[in-house]
Amino acid sequence: MKFSIRRNSFITALNDAQRAISSKTAIDVLTGIKITLSASKLTLTGSDADISIETVISQEDEKAALQIDEPGSIVLPARFFNEIVKKLPEDMMTITIDERFQATITSGQAEFTINGLDSETYPHLPEIEADSKLTIAADILKQIITQTVIAVSNQESRPILTGIHLAYSNGELLAVATDSHRLSQRKITLTDAGTQDYDIIVPGKSLSELAKMLGDSTENVEIRIAENQILFTFANTSFYSRLLEGNYPDTDRLIPQNSETTVEFNAVDLLHSIERASLLSHEGRNNVVKLSLKTGAQKAVIYGNSPEIGNVEEDLSFKKLEGNDLEISFNPDYMKDALSSFGQTDITMSLTLPLRPFTLVPTEDGANFVQLITPVRTF
Amino acid sequence: MKFSIRRNSFITALNDAQRAISSKTAIDVLTGIKITLSASKLTLTGSDADISIETVISQEDEKAALQIDEPGSIVLPARFFNEIVKKLPEDMMTITIDERFQATITSGQAEFTINGLDSETYPHLPEIEADSKLTIAADILKQIITQTVIAVSNQESRPILTGIHLAYSNGELLAVATDSHRLSQRKITLTDAGTQDYDIIVPGKSLSELAKMLGDSTENVEIRIAENQILFTFANTSFYSRLLEGNYPDTDRLIPQNSETTVEFNAVDLLHSIERASLLSHEGRNNVVKLSLKTGAQKAVIYGNSPEIGNVEEDLSFKKLEGNDLEISFNPDYMKDALSSFGQTDITMSLTLPLRPFTLVPTEDGANFVQLITPVRTF
Repeated sequence: MKFSIRRNSFITALNDAQRAISSKTAIDVLTGIKITLSASKLTLTGSDADISIETVISQEDEKAALQIDEPGSIVLPARFFNEIVKKLPEDMMTITIDERFQATITSGQAEFTINGLDSETYPHLPEIEADSKLTIAADILKQIITQTVIAVSNQESRPILTGIHLAYSNGELLAVATDSHRLSQRKITLTDAGTQDYDIIVPGKSLSELAKMLGDSTENVEIRIAENQILFTFANTSFYSRLLEGNYPDTDRLIPQNSETTVEFNAVDLLHSIERASLLSHEGRNNVVKLSLKTGAQKAVIYGNSPEIGNVEEDLSFKKLEGNDLEISFNPDYMKDALSSFGQTDITMSLTLPLRPFTLVPTEDGANFVQLITPVRTF
Repeated sequence: MKFSIRRNSFITALNDAQRAISSKTAIDVLTGIKITLSASKLTLTGSDADISIETVISQEDEKAALQIDEPGSIVLPARFFNEIVKKLPEDMMTITIDERFQATITSGQAEFTINGLDSETYPHLPEIEADSKLTIAADILKQIITQTVIAVSNQESRPILTGIHLAYSNGELLAVATDSHRLSQRKITLTDAGTQDYDIIVPGKSLSELAKMLGDSTENVEIRIAENQILFTFANTSFYSRLLEGNYPDTDRLIPQNSETTVEFNAVDLLHSIERASLLSHEGRNNVVKLSLKTGAQKAVIYGNSPEIGNVEEDLSFKKLEGNDLEISFNPDYMKDALSSFGQTDITMSLTLPLRPFTLVPTEDGANFVQLITPVRTF
C-alpha cells in the first residue's frame, strides 16, 4: 500500500473515525485505526465494538489531493498515528506499508516507521442492507438527541434505560429517555422521511457521539435499521451503532395530564437562579434546592443551603403564577439540565403535589417537548 | 462592615488575591480570603504561608464604584465566595457582616448568607520596612523568570535547588536555576534599578505565580528585600514570598568555556523536530533522543524510538556546523523547555564530548543567556 495526501484533509477524516476508538477496549486490534486503500478511495475505520465510524476520502476530492500509488490495507496504533500525523512538518504526507505490516510515514525530512497489524484481524463492520431508510435534517436530529439524552440513565443496572427510545410511525418521530428520576420526551413531524414504521432503542452514548459529529454544514442524515444495528450516513461518514434489546417501559403514563399549580418562567433566567441556589446545596449532604410558590402573595422563591457554609434565597421573577400554594424540593442538577435544553424561551412549569413529578414545557408549544422531574423528599 | 462595589472590579482583585490560596493548606483560616475595609479602601488578602498576595481597591477608583458604609474585616471561605460573586445576577453587589461573623451578600434579588471567621485569627503579613528598593520593568522581570524557572528542581531532597538564585551588584542582575541535570542562566543590566547589592534565593513556585500576574499593562515592579522575605509591588498589588535559606551552589564552574563542536539552528524549527522525535521516545523505557552531528558530511540527524511502537529519524536543517563529529543523547523534554525559552531566534549549540553538558545560547547575544543540558548515557 502506498499513497500521498494533503495532511489537513487526512486529519479531519482521521479525527472523525477516531471518535469511535476507546483506549479502554479489551480487544487489542480495536485500539488501532484501519486504513483501506482501493483504486479510487481511502477509507478510515474506527470502532469500539458498540460504535463504528467509517470515513471516506475520494480521489475526486481535490482539496485532499489523494494520490493512490498501490492499494492495500493496514491497522495502525490510533493514538500515536494521530499524534504523528498532527506533528508532521509539511503540508503533504506519504504512507507506505511493507509486507511485514511496517508503515513508513514521511513528510518533508521527517520519517517515522511504526509497527502495524494485519487488517485481516480487524472485525468486519455490520452489514446493513435495508432497502428502506429514514431521512432527517442533521440539525433537527442533533436537537432531538441533545434535548433527550440528558435523561438517559448511566446505571448499568437497567441497561434498557441507558438508551433513547425512538418510535417512528405515521410521519411522526417520538424520542424519549428516562433514568426513572426524570424524563425527556420530544415529538416531531417529519415530511418525506420514509414510509416504514420503526420502534428501536439506541444507546445514549452512541447518539451523543453522533450529535457531536453533526455540524451545521451537514444537510441530511440517512438512517437505516437492521436487526440489531443502526446506520447513520451523512457527508463522507458512516456511523454504526448497536441497538439495545428489550422493551422500553411505557412512559406515556408517567407524564401527568393535569396540574394544580402552574408558573411561567424565562428558561435562562430561571437557570441562572438555580445555578446560584445550587452553589451551596452541592456542598451539603443532600443536593437539593427548594422552590416555594405562593399564588396569593404572587411570590416564587428558591432556597439552597449547606449546613457548613450558609444559605441562599432568591425571589424569582415569573410571567404568570396560578393555582395552589406549593413547596417542592428537587435535585438542582436535573433542573439545570432540563432548563439548558430549552434555550432562550419561556417555559411553563406544571405541578400537582410536593412528591409528584412536575413538568416543564415550552409555553408556546407544550405538546411536542416535555421535561419531567421527580421531586426529592426532604422530611 | 458594609460596602457596595461593582462586581467586575471586585472579581479582578479577588482573583489576584486568590492566587496565593491553596486548598491543600493545613491552616484552616488560610483557605479563606481576608477582606479588610478601612475608611478609604478595600483590601483583599490571600496566603498559603509561603506566598501572600494583597490587592487594594481605593474609593478613588471610579470604575470600582466602591461605597464604604461601615469599615470592618472578615475572613470568608475563598472558593465559595469566589463562585458566589461570579454568579451574582447584577452589576453591583453589597456585602454586610454582622457581629457573629456572618456575611450577607446581595445582588439584585439574590441573597447569600455565609459563615465567616474572625479576621483576628488570620496570620499577619510579614513586615518589610526596607528603605532601599530595586526597580525593574514588569516585562523584563517576567521574561527573566520564565526563562530560568524551567530549570528549577521540583525535588525537595535539595530544597535550595527549588529556588532561583538572584544576584544583583554593580547594576547587573544575574538569575540562575539548576536541578543538577540542566541549568538556565540569564544576565541583565539594569539602569537606575537601585544602589544596594543583593544575593537571594526565591522559591521557583513563587516566581512562577508572580510571572502569571505580570500583565503587559504593568509598568514597573518595585522589589524590597528583608531578612527572609521579598516583596514585589506593582499596580494595586503587593506580592510577598519567603526566601530560601542557605548557600546556592557555585554554578559558574558548571558552564563549559570551550567547545569541540558547534551548530547553529533556528530555535523554533529545532523545537518542532525534537517534538516529533520525542513522540515515540516518550513511550519507551528511556525518554531519550539521539542527535548525530557529522561535520564532514554536513549532516545533523535526530533519532527517536520506542521498541514497541517504532522509530523516527529526521534530517535537521541548520545554519552552520563546525568541529568534531559527535553523537549525543538527551532528554527531549529538557531540550523542549530550553528551546521554548528562546522564542523565534537563531541559537548556537556548543558541545564537547558525548557525556559532557552542552549549551544553547542565542547566536546574536551569547553572553547574557545560557541554557545548559547534561546528556544521558545510553550504553
